[in-house]
Amino acid sequence: MKLVVVRHGESAYNKSNLFSGWEDVALTTNGIEEAKQAGRRLGKKQIEFDYAFTSVLKRSIKSLQYILDEMHQEWLPVKKTWRLNERSYGALQRLNKAETANKEGKALVNRWRKSYDALPPLLNLADPRHPIHDRRYSNVDPKLLPSGESLKTTLDRVLPCWADEIAPLLLGGKNVLVVSHRNTLRALVKYLENISDEDIVNVDVPTGAPVVYEFDKSLNILSKEELIDEVKM
Amino acid sequence: MKLVVVRHGESAYNKSNLFSGWEDVALTTNGIEEAKQAGRRLGKKQIEFDYAFTSVLKRSIKSLQYILDEMHQEWLPVKKTWRLNERSYGALQRLNKAETANKEGKALVNRWRKSYDALPPLLNLADPRHPIHDRRYSNVDPKLLPSGESLKTTLDRVLPCWADEIAPLLLGGKNVLVVSHRNTLRALVKYLENISDEDIVNVDVPTGAPVVYEFDKSLNILSKEELIDEVKM
Repeated sequence: MKLVVVRHGESAYNKSNLFSGWEDVALTTNGIEEAKQAGRRLGKKQIEFDYAFTSVLKRSIKSLQYILDEMHQEWLPVKKTWRLNERSYGALQRLNKAETANKEGKALVNRWRKSYDALPPLLNLADPRHPIHDRRYSNVDPKLLPSGESLKTTLDRVLPCWADEIAPLLLGGKNVLVVSHRNTLRALVKYLENISDEDIVNVDVPTGAPVVYEFDKSLNILSKEELIDEVKM
Repeated sequence: MKLVVVRHGESAYNKSNLFSGWEDVALTTNGIEEAKQAGRRLGKKQIEFDYAFTSVLKRSIKSLQYILDEMHQEWLPVKKTWRLNERSYGALQRLNKAETANKEGKALVNRWRKSYDALPPLLNLADPRHPIHDRRYSNVDPKLLPSGESLKTTLDRVLPCWADEIAPLLLGGKNVLVVSHRNTLRALVKYLENISDEDIVNVDVPTGAPVVYEFDKSLNILSKEELIDEVKM
C-alpha cells in the first residue's frame, strides 16, 4: 500500500509573497504546469490509486484535478476536506510577508512562520476573513474553525483525517493520493516520519515533486521516494 | 430545494458520430465551452449548491469541474458514480452511427436508439470494451455491470442513486447539481416528470442548458426552468 503526498503548485499569493493560509487563491500559470508535471511524474510510475484526498481550497483541488487528468484517473473518488486545508495564518492572511517583517520585526515573523508551536496573530470572529463566514464550512462545528494555527494545532486537526480516513484505506491495501498544502504536509510528514519538534523547522515539502511512501502492514514506512526526474510531455 | 440537471458538453465521439455509451471519451474544445457556458448561466442564477453528482466518465466529470470553476464552487463535495453513466450501447460502442444504419437498416438502429425498451446488441464478457475489465468498476458487483442497456434498464440502475442519495438531500432542504449524460438524464426526467413510455421517445435534453427543478416537501415538481439565455464572459 502506497501513500503519495503532493503539494499544490504555485498560487497567486505565493507569487506575490502574501500570507495565504485559508484564503482561497487560484493557481498561477506556472502552478498549473507544476501540477501537470507532478501528474506526469506519477503517470510514469504507473501507480493505480484507489482514493484521493484534498482540501476545500481551489489551489489544491485544481492541482489534484490536473494530476488525475495526466494520469487518466479522472474517475477516482475524491474527498475534499477542511482538515487538509493549509495552516491558518490568522490575521496575517492577505498581508505581504516582507512588509510584515519590516513592521513586526524579522525575528517575530520568522518565529510565526517556522517554529512548531507559535500561533500567528488571531482573526477576530467578526473579521470577514474568519472561516465562520464562509458557506463551505457550514457543516463544521464552528468551535473547530481556527482563528489562527501553529504547526502543532494544524497537526491536531489533520490527524483525525489520517486516523479515520486515510490509514484505514492503506490498511485495507489501497493506494491513496493526498494533494494538500505546505504546512499541512509538513505536519503530516512530521507525524509519519516521527520528526522532533526541533527538527521539523528545517523540513520542507517541494511543489510539483510527489513523495511516495510505502508501508508495511503495521503502517511502518518501508520506503520513501521523491519523484523529481524530468518527464517530457 | 432545487435540483439542477446538466448534460455534458460535446464529446469527441459526438463529433465523429460514434456510439459512445460507457466508452470514456474526452470533451471537444466546443464541449468545454458548452460546459463553461452552462456554468456561467448557473452562476448568473446564484444558486448555492450543497452537493454535486456525476458519472465516472470524464466527459461528465470535466463538464462538472468547468461548471463549478465558473460558479466559484470548486470546493463542493462531488460523488462520482457508475449509476449516472451514460446508457450502455453494448456492442454498438465505438461504431459509427451512419455506417451501422447502412449495415443493419435504419429502422432497427432507430429502434435501438429511440425506443424505451429495445436492447442494443450485447457485449460479450470477453470483449475488452466490457466494463468488467475496467478497474474503475472493481467496487461494483459484477452482476450489475451491463453488457448493453435499454432506456428502461438504464432507469432501473439510475433510480437507486436518486432514491438513496439525491432525494434524501433534497428532502433535507439541500440544492443538488447532477451533471450526466443524454440518456441517463432522459431516464431520470421520465421518472421525475412521470412521462409515458411512448412520450419519452420525443423528449431530449440539450447540451449546455441547465434545467432547474424546484420541489415541494413531497418532492412534487413546483417549477421547471431551462437556462438558455445568453451570458457573456
